Amino acid sequence: MALDLPPGPLSAQNQAYFDTCLEKLGFVPNVLVAYAHDDAKLSAFAAFYNDLMLAPSGLSKLEREMIAVAVSSVNRCYYCLSAHGAAVRRLSEDPVLGELMAMNFRAGDLSRRHRAMLDFAVKLTETPHLIAEADRAVLREAGFGEREIWDVAAVAAFFNMSNRMASAVDMRPNPEYHREAR
Amino acid sequence: MALDLPPGPLSAQNQAYFDTCLEKLGFVPNVLVAYAHDDAKLSAFAAFYNDLMLAPSGLSKLEREMIAVAVSSVNRCYYCLSAHGAAVRRLSEDPVLGELMAMNFRAGDLSRRHRAMLDFAVKLTETPHLIAEADRAVLREAGFGEREIWDVAAVAAFFNMSNRMASAVDMRPNPEYHREAR
Amino acid sequence: MALDLPPGPLSAQNQAYFDTCLEKLGFVPNVLVAYAHDDAKLSAFAAFYNDLMLAPSGLSKLEREMIAVAVSSVNRCYYCLSAHGAAVRRLSEDPVLGELMAMNFRAGDLSRRHRAMLDFAVKLTETPHLIAEADRAVLREAGFGEREIWDVAAVAAFFNMSNRMASAVDMRPNPEYHREAR
Amino acid sequence: MALDLPPGPLSAQNQAYFDTCLEKLGFVPNVLVAYAHDDAKLSAFAAFYNDLMLAPSGLSKLEREMIAVAVSSVNRCYYCLSAHGAAVRRLSEDPVLGELMAMNFRAGDLSRRHRAMLDFAVKLTETPHLIAEADRAVLREAGFGEREIWDVAAVAAFFNMSNRMASAVDMRPNPEYHREAR
Amino acid sequence: MALDLPPGPLSAQNQAYFDTCLEKLGFVPNVLVAYAHDDAKLSAFAAFYNDLMLAPSGLSKLEREMIAVAVSSVNRCYYCLSAHGAAVRRLSEDPVLGELMAMNFRAGDLSRRHRAMLDFAVKLTETPHLIAEADRAVLREAGFGEREIWDVAAVAAFFNMSNRMASAVDMRPNPEYHREAR
Amino acid sequence: MALDLPPGPLSAQNQAYFDTCLEKLGFVPNVLVAYAHDDAKLSAFAAFYNDLMLAPSGLSKLEREMIAVAVSSVNRCYYCLSAHGAAVRRLSEDPVLGELMAMNFRAGDLSRRHRAMLDFAVKLTETPHLIAEADRAVLREAGFGEREIWDVAAVAAFFNMSNRMASAVDMRPNPEYHREAR
Repeated sequence: MALDLPPGPLSAQNQAYFDTCLEKLGFVPNVLVAYAHDDAKLSAFAAFYNDLMLAPSGLSKLEREMIAVAVSSVNRCYYCLSAHGAAVRRLSEDPVLGELMAMNFRAGDLSRRHRAMLDFAVKLTETPHLIAEADRAVLREAGFGEREIWDVAAVAAFFNMSNRMASAVDMRPNPEYHREAR
Repeated sequence: MALDLPPGPLSAQNQAYFDTCLEKLGFVPNVLVAYAHDDAKLSAFAAFYNDLMLAPSGLSKLEREMIAVAVSSVNRCYYCLSAHGAAVRRLSEDPVLGELMAMNFRAGDLSRRHRAMLDFAVKLTETPHLIAEADRAVLREAGFGEREIWDVAAVAAFFNMSNRMASAVDMRPNPEYHREAR
Repeated sequence: MALDLPPGPLSAQNQAYFDTCLEKLGFVPNVLVAYAHDDAKLSAFAAFYNDLMLAPSGLSKLEREMIAVAVSSVNRCYYCLSAHGAAVRRLSEDPVLGELMAMNFRAGDLSRRHRAMLDFAVKLTETPHLIAEADRAVLREAGFGEREIWDVAAVAAFFNMSNRMASAVDMRPNPEYHREAR
Repeated sequence: MALDLPPGPLSAQNQAYFDTCLEKLGFVPNVLVAYAHDDAKLSAFAAFYNDLMLAPSGLSKLEREMIAVAVSSVNRCYYCLSAHGAAVRRLSEDPVLGELMAMNFRAGDLSRRHRAMLDFAVKLTETPHLIAEADRAVLREAGFGEREIWDVAAVAAFFNMSNRMASAVDMRPNPEYHREAR
Repeated sequence: MALDLPPGPLSAQNQAYFDTCLEKLGFVPNVLVAYAHDDAKLSAFAAFYNDLMLAPSGLSKLEREMIAVAVSSVNRCYYCLSAHGAAVRRLSEDPVLGELMAMNFRAGDLSRRHRAMLDFAVKLTETPHLIAEADRAVLREAGFGEREIWDVAAVAAFFNMSNRMASAVDMRPNPEYHREAR
Repeated sequence: MALDLPPGPLSAQNQAYFDTCLEKLGFVPNVLVAYAHDDAKLSAFAAFYNDLMLAPSGLSKLEREMIAVAVSSVNRCYYCLSAHGAAVRRLSEDPVLGELMAMNFRAGDLSRRHRAMLDFAVKLTETPHLIAEADRAVLREAGFGEREIWDVAAVAAFFNMSNRMASAVDMRPNPEYHREAR
């Protein structure tokens, strides 16, 4: 990244996390490397992220990644579009879906559920002050429960943070992402 | 909040956290009440937040709150402007500073350090894809070190998440904030 | 203000106006001090303003102040948010209402009348070229008569002038406003 | 206009004003007809307007009209572009200058003075919250004195009001404007 | 234009085209002079343009010119507003219609057909990524057939190119346009 | 595409063009299929396009494709991002470069020449009315000659047309593009 903040000593837990990444992915995602200058911040970030994206939810992991990419497209975040675009391709086994999310999700033929989910995520990204009960109503009508609406919002909100963190410190995606699941 | 997600059972740690809030503030901030529908999410949020805003940093707690309010002003977040506006007033013992941050920080006579800090935070909020090395250079010239730049970015990025979470679920500020430190 | 235009000699009428301000408010609002470099301009401004905000109207004085603050929030005008935010707090005897107008009026539970009134004022502020018959129809359906629609428009339009005048010459709010009616 | 607010009885002074318009212009400008539903408002508007546009100033009448048109172009105000575009053509005896102001003043070869004047007026129109000392400094460097800066600001601010009033009530320009000084 | 690219040798066909312009219009439009630095580019542009604006279509030539001006108004293109504004005035024999298209087409009383046509053209100009089936449906309901929808889109899209070419190289309108058909 | 305009009879020249596409690419690009409802329009489009993208120029074919993708990213055009993103990957033999152009060209380490070229293309796309001599000067300082500046502008302007045509009629990219040159 563009800041001179080299990774510091890691706790055993975070070292194990990095080792697992290396083993499973072949690399440690650069976002984790960026946070590693401060072990406490890395822990807090990883805990928050893993609950958000991996814990049980009425949203599938793929749906959470679709939101991640659609939000990152609004914010034009190179890091997140690369990393989470790869995740959409991998989880969906549909390489074109990843492209669609990154380029313009409106240009494809999404289900009503997915269209409502992404419309909400993008409005929350672009004009959060205009989100109103009518927007939540559209999600309910598309079948989302209360907790699922929370989760749509939470994923969209998180990537508004993460996109900005990546831009602020110029995180660059690991090159492996570009080749994955094409 | 606008979602029907009542607080669930809390872990001992989170119950203690709520008790401390009640004791110290006289109320539990509604953002914590909102997350309390899921104890794990509350824990992850609180840990992340407390590291960000309270851990040792080259930024004072007041500076972190100033960033919070300036970002929330761009996003027009009623909850965060109320809660963190109160924090700026309290920590600075300068009620006018809280108003200035919420209304338009450019209209006051800030130090070069604070102006640079808030300009970066607001650019990161409005056009994250345009943040470039030149923007980090302005912070460095204003005396910010590498870790402090990280912290400016991290606080600004976080409130871009938190503002959106508040808008998404219609969090309302505890009324106590409006009266605090006037 | 940021221009070197000190107050000039005042006509008897304007001097009396200033004396009344001092007596009733304890200070002369800085906007009037700013115009006082030219007695004729001060007279024209005061006459226009007093007709707009104080003359009989189907809009209450509070409603006119609510429009003033909502428009000033769009334009991020520190002077007008401070001065007219205080007026909303004082006239409504509801300190929270002043905050809501300044931060994001959509985040509260306004009456249909007030929501329609502020939606019109804000659209007129942000995209005047898009105002159409349908926008006036919403006001009529919310119970506004023809003259009241004129008055909503006139107040919103005026603060689009006044906000810009304040920003152009860097008017600063009298400190008394910040403490008023909290 | 789109509101059902027919002209009411006029004071002798305002009737004389309308008679003068008819005599000199051949018509009463529709903006005055629109305000004539309330004689007091008409008086306040006319007094404010005439001081602004006709009183002695370091800005020529043409320069004030140029600002009026450039601001009205940003706000896409059909009434003001028509009426004040005609005024620019007439006062300058340069029909092309009126077109240039209405379409995009940057596309012509203006003097440094006029370019600075219009850049300030347009920035004040588009992003008033970003106007800063540096913007006033550009005007000073282009030869504008303190009072002239006030006048540039005052004209630009006024048309931000007037444009919105015209849009709000759907004022239509008198057809004579379109033919004038071509 | 602002580039030092003088007209080069013209093919017989393009020379004849220029001669026809001189004969019929009294001048060669500066857009053609600008392309004349490269005879092949001039030929490709003229062929594309003439098919678009002059070939048989369910849109009248006037309608195509109306689209041209409304799009050029969004993009604030001095060249195209001047040249095609003149064309609207000439083809419609209604000088006011040309002004309306250039200033704000929403401020007039257009037919449903023309309003739908221009709303589509302007949305395609401002937010092409948001054009959806619902937008095409509005055109169909206003009586446009499939081929006519193509033609509305094609004219609007073309002027988004042409406006930018004019701005990029600072094309200036021939002075004759300003006087034409007033 | 979303319009019911099936391909019509093709001229021998256009049929040969389609045959060549099939032979070389394995498919006919859907943009050509879309224009094929009218043989004359297809001819005009193909001639214009081929001169622009394939004729000799001081810009390499890769550079022209880079501009195409950067512009299409601003306009979020799914068709053009897919088709021309593939072209960047193929011509550069650098799959990551195609991703970078589509996502946010500012996030990579481009040469001064390429950065200037894309900055100009994107400003011309976003705010054509603000392009000024200073913008052309940056290109000249980066080594672009007069004709090359024309070509940068011409490619950027063209994709502002083509992006809108694709969105207007809902062109979908041939699936082959997604897999190409990964």
